[in-house]
Amino acid sequence: MQDKSPSSLNIRDKLISKISAQGDKVRQLKSAKAAKVVIDSEVKVLLALKSEFKSVTGEEWQPGLQLAVSIAPGEQLSSKIVEQGDIVRKLKSEKGAKEIIDAEVKTLLALKAEYKTVTGVEWKPMSNKPEPVTPMADQDGKSEENEVDVLTSKITKQGNVVRKLKSSGGDKNLVDAEVKKLLELKTQYKKLTGTDFPTESSRTPNKKEKTAVAKKQAETPAHKDESQTGLKKQTRLGLEARKEENLADWYSQVLTKAELIEYYDVSGCYILRPWSYAIWEAIKNFMDPEIKKLGVQNCYFPLFVSRAMLEKEKTHIADFSPEVAWVTKSGDTDLSEPIAVRPTSETVMYPAYAKWVQSYRDLPIKLNQWNNVVRWEFKHPQPFLRTREFLWQEGHTAHAAFKEAEEEVYVILDLYARIYTDLLAIPVIKGRKTEKEKFAGGDFTTTVEAYVGASGRAIQGATSHHLGQNFSRMFEIMYEDPETQEKKYVYQNSWGITTRTIGVMIMIHADNQGLVLPPRVACFQVVIVPCGITASMKDIDRKALIGSCEELEATLKAAGIRVKGDYRDNYSPGWKFNHWELKGVPVRIEVGPKDIKEKQVVAVRRDTGEKLTLQRETAESDILQLLETIHHNMLDKATKELESHTVECRDWSDFCAQLEKRNIILAPFCGSIPCEDYIKQESAREESEPGAPSMGAKSLCTPFVQTTAIQSTDKCINPTCSNKPQSYTLFGRSY
Amino acid sequence: MQDKSPSSLNIRDKLISKISAQGDKVRQLKSAKAAKVVIDSEVKVLLALKSEFKSVTGEEWQPGLQLAVSIAPGEQLSSKIVEQGDIVRKLKSEKGAKEIIDAEVKTLLALKAEYKTVTGVEWKPMSNKPEPVTPMADQDGKSEENEVDVLTSKITKQGNVVRKLKSSGGDKNLVDAEVKKLLELKTQYKKLTGTDFPTESSRTPNKKEKTAVAKKQAETPAHKDESQTGLKKQTRLGLEARKEENLADWYSQVLTKAELIEYYDVSGCYILRPWSYAIWEAIKNFMDPEIKKLGVQNCYFPLFVSRAMLEKEKTHIADFSPEVAWVTKSGDTDLSEPIAVRPTSETVMYPAYAKWVQSYRDLPIKLNQWNNVVRWEFKHPQPFLRTREFLWQEGHTAHAAFKEAEEEVYVILDLYARIYTDLLAIPVIKGRKTEKEKFAGGDFTTTVEAYVGASGRAIQGATSHHLGQNFSRMFEIMYEDPETQEKKYVYQNSWGITTRTIGVMIMIHADNQGLVLPPRVACFQVVIVPCGITASMKDIDRKALIGSCEELEATLKAAGIRVKGDYRDNYSPGWKFNHWELKGVPVRIEVGPKDIKEKQVVAVRRDTGEKLTLQRETAESDILQLLETIHHNMLDKATKELESHTVECRDWSDFCAQLEKRNIILAPFCGSIPCEDYIKQESAREESEPGAPSMGAKSLCTPFVQTTAIQSTDKCINPTCSNKPQSYTLFGRSY
Ligand SMILES: [Zn+2]
Ligand SMILES: [Zn+2]
Repeated sequence: MQDKSPSSLNIRDKLISKISAQGDKVRQLKSAKAAKVVIDSEVKVLLALKSEFKSVTGEEWQPGLQLAVSIAPGEQLSSKIVEQGDIVRKLKSEKGAKEIIDAEVKTLLALKAEYKTVTGVEWKPMSNKPEPVTPMADQDGKSEENEVDVLTSKITKQGNVVRKLKSSGGDKNLVDAEVKKLLELKTQYKKLTGTDFPTESSRTPNKKEKTAVAKKQAETPAHKDESQTGLKKQTRLGLEARKEENLADWYSQVLTKAELIEYYDVSGCYILRPWSYAIWEAIKNFMDPEIKKLGVQNCYFPLFVSRAMLEKEKTHIADFSPEVAWVTKSGDTDLSEPIAVRPTSETVMYPAYAKWVQSYRDLPIKLNQWNNVVRWEFKHPQPFLRTREFLWQEGHTAHAAFKEAEEEVYVILDLYARIYTDLLAIPVIKGRKTEKEKFAGGDFTTTVEAYVGASGRAIQGATSHHLGQNFSRMFEIMYEDPETQEKKYVYQNSWGITTRTIGVMIMIHADNQGLVLPPRVACFQVVIVPCGITASMKDIDRKALIGSCEELEATLKAAGIRVKGDYRDNYSPGWKFNHWELKGVPVRIEVGPKDIKEKQVVAVRRDTGEKLTLQRETAESDILQLLETIHHNMLDKATKELESHTVECRDWSDFCAQLEKRNIILAPFCGSIPCEDYIKQESAREESEPGAPSMGAKSLCTPFVQTTAIQSTDKCINPTCSNKPQSYTLFGRSY
Repeated sequence: MQDKSPSSLNIRDKLISKISAQGDKVRQLKSAKAAKVVIDSEVKVLLALKSEFKSVTGEEWQPGLQLAVSIAPGEQLSSKIVEQGDIVRKLKSEKGAKEIIDAEVKTLLALKAEYKTVTGVEWKPMSNKPEPVTPMADQDGKSEENEVDVLTSKITKQGNVVRKLKSSGGDKNLVDAEVKKLLELKTQYKKLTGTDFPTESSRTPNKKEKTAVAKKQAETPAHKDESQTGLKKQTRLGLEARKEENLADWYSQVLTKAELIEYYDVSGCYILRPWSYAIWEAIKNFMDPEIKKLGVQNCYFPLFVSRAMLEKEKTHIADFSPEVAWVTKSGDTDLSEPIAVRPTSETVMYPAYAKWVQSYRDLPIKLNQWNNVVRWEFKHPQPFLRTREFLWQEGHTAHAAFKEAEEEVYVILDLYARIYTDLLAIPVIKGRKTEKEKFAGGDFTTTVEAYVGASGRAIQGATSHHLGQNFSRMFEIMYEDPETQEKKYVYQNSWGITTRTIGVMIMIHADNQGLVLPPRVACFQVVIVPCGITASMKDIDRKALIGSCEELEATLKAAGIRVKGDYRDNYSPGWKFNHWELKGVPVRIEVGPKDIKEKQVVAVRRDTGEKLTLQRETAESDILQLLETIHHNMLDKATKELESHTVECRDWSDFCAQLEKRNIILAPFCGSIPCEDYIKQESAREESEPGAPSMGAKSLCTPFVQTTAIQSTDKCINPTCSNKPQSYTLFGRSY
């Protein structure tokens, strides 16, 4: 890459000037109200230039790009600003201390000022940046909460004083005086909150813990709640941002409060905690035996790629090259040549395929690996959805016959669709990517696309590519035809599904109470919470209650249900309800003394909140049934959302209007790249409410199932395009 | 690291000069035959300096190191030479084309010449380099084989001529003449080889394939054999190097010919093919549920570490820093700060632990990940045994109580021991690492050590560390004592087992016929080969034979046996026997027409070569039993080898003599680092046969089971040491 940069930079610079000049021309024509045909033809020239720009540089053309090229520091500054913006957002969403946030905001502003000095223009986020930076959630109720905190702390302190005096045999008058103070505090507490101060057994606040909690940011709910257990103030126990009001903050809070993600000090990298990793394990546990049934074998190829191999397939690397992370040093020693970290393994694996394939009898090769890959993107990172390192499975197969390869592409895509529908309760649309959006270097790409109602954006769920003979030509993967003794290139596929699945699942199913786990991937499907334990309860009764819960737990476990009994005695049932709700466990079972007497249990559904009373005797089969019901209900709900936001358009102005309504759009489309460039660019220009995403529409896929046939009178949705439409293609704003 | 390098480099330089001067002094004293006490005391000073050098720089002191410091290019050149040496060795072991090898050797010599120019001294491999570069395996029998090849090619060509003439309806006389030529060639063939030229159904040689095979190096046995199928010449089908004669070549050939490894163009990185990855999956499938039973949860932490975190625990990073790979660029853009690729995840994970731990109720934390790590070592790499990237499982736990943490260390070590004994049929010695050899930054390290008879060297099998409170102090992982409200640091463990296991398994069990897989980790435990199919056989009989094999396959599969029926009709039974022997399948079952009639099957053991005739009716239970027998036989054999090479020594000259006999040695030892440095250094100086490894003895562990108790009269094995011996410690040459 470095070798070719001087010359490609020159071409790049020239193209940027040309695009800039052409853009000016179009603008002038428009403001001069030139004839439509004239403008259209100039726009076409502009798009052609942009398309050329992409094929030469491997980058999408973007306004402001020329600055990034002629003044390199601008580009670096821009990524620094994005990173700093992330830090500020993160701190805000985690309610960091004000001084810290202020300091970070100052740094951000300084960076922006520097950017302006260097580039001469205001810094602007890129067009496809998701939600804008939002102010902290509103402060309503904050002062009341603080009063409660202060009081809680005072009561705790005073309680300790009393206990110490009593245990050390203090003077009775002294003890009485201190007890009196304590009672006064508790009275104040009841006045303020309307409830009694929680009893000792259900809470454990104390001063030092509180201090520690206040000191550390981004604490888990367990910690946060320790300082205020029993208060059951849902606003503080749970999420503070609402999905429909501030999606970015809401998402970030679900991630941390449901203990899915921990933030990390390398930008774009995140810690997958056991609660989210278990979902990935569930996906693996489904996918791995399915592909083994197809004759796919697991293996492991190196993390590192030599530059020579990485750059062998030009179209392919052009798409990845700005995102490739390079290792250049070990310890303090420079490596003799930089080594790339794999962004995907085509170029890692195919030289070996070339060695292994000699005869048609060496085919097919069907290998898969579960591994990590790195793409150093500079767009705004989001846990699961866009990360610099992610986990995936990548399958790579080589076949003698095209037909066999092609069939596999669809078999694998069906498995991906099943991961979404059957495991994650998410409907997907199966289809083929357009020329513009297909995998670089491949012949065609198939995809499953999901829809996130909260943002009105689609998201690519997984892709299965047919690479044709492009890579086999580059890497010389050849076999000899047994009939003709001719050397032939193999046909190849590659296919992958990533930890992005988890992000899609959260975006679609989680709600303002927290995560909602689809039962089939839930780490725990059921949680049992013993209820009605009071301070006055006899020990034998308490033991009987716990024993009964444990018995139920064993029964459900034996039925194959992933169940957890929460018998912790330092948390109240209410705290536990909130905790497991936040973590999204599909079914909560409550067992109290009354339930035991009545031979029943109370089951609460996470998806609907519905309370059911089940006979204890049939609980096992009822719960199994209930988990199925929940799965289907979640899938139905998401399907309705998808369907109600999928519309057909044949008219450009309707297309743009539908986009503003957060819909995804089926439209007649000719399939050409310049035409798609136009659609993306022009749909981005439409007016929208301030703050709403204004990115242009991308093609998502051409669905395999075409609900409407192209009529002879249909025209391509792009009003400036005179090509014949090929099919209805799905467009939308997209992650 | 860069920040501190100037000052630490100064200290480093000073120490190197001091060590050099002190070394000279010792040498002078020795050559002047000074009094032993005088020499000993000066040697002690020397060792203390070396030990200081290690603690300051994190590197082991080595002769020649001063050059690496004062003349940095020398260090770089040295690593280039090592890499280039690898390339040459690899090409040679893979029988690369002569021109290519010659060119690479030339490069190697040029590098060495440059090294001499720069440093003023001859380049020498480091003391712990394993086997020396060896010449290609001897050329005996090559000429005969070449004649066979030429003839085979001629016959194939002639066969094609005949076929074409026949199918194109050529003139009968012409056909007859060509057939005559073919028969003459076949007669020659029989004269030369003593066997008939294989029939069409069992072979498929043809000219172009042959050419392709000859062109490509490092082909798999399948390819090689296609050009000469049916010849059953074991020397060519199988390994060409012998374990007892040339261990390095033998190892490399087992790796490639058994299809465990494919070499790769990034030095120190290797491709784990399905045949080896399946062993890793077997280890995972055992270990993962076992640790989950202990309450350990799986998760995933990032591949990358910021410099600040990586360098937080000084002793720890000192051990790893020269091996850390640094990412400094993405695409063409320099990162604002280099980011490290994890060499292990203590520093990645513990900042999060600090966030998560507030109260004793957040403890224990028990997390594990199955991932890849990178250690950019400059020692001679060997697949599985020493690689720059490897796969492992790393468990990291935090506990309130030392006792609980300590117990876990041993529970995990027992699981590791079971992986060796119960899965891999390898005996191990459990023990504790000495101060010198323990994990840097930890309190104590426990280990399982195995013994490789072929090299007389021990190998560390897996380690389970108690980190004490060292890391928790650095990363401030604290909880509040519920009794005293005091802040306390947690006690931590970390433990890991790697893909090195596979290398140990190969080194110990594989033989001159190829791999020998322990049944419990074998991808296929049994292979069924139908035999006695002749060209004249009726189709119905052939089908009956295959059907019978398939039925047996189904029966065994139903019994949980991993079985593969090899029904390929383009390979002869003999070829298949060799193929599966090379790949190490524990049991081969042969079924021929006679066996069907007699209601029997023939089973051949891979470990002993023994042939058994089993009743078909009881084959299922007999095979299950046989697999167990094989496991125990393999374990017994390896145990005898270990025991017969473990000796006790109380005398230093005996110690060195035993080392030369490829033994590992139990000796009374005081445990101090300078004393161990002395042992390592002095044992390396002993005379040994040319070419044999001459590295010094390292301590392997202090075995938990002490067969002999330390007597009051015992002295430390180091003759210059006057410390009281603590216990019998195991020493040996080691990987
Ligand atoms: Zn069009
Ligand atoms: Zn000693």
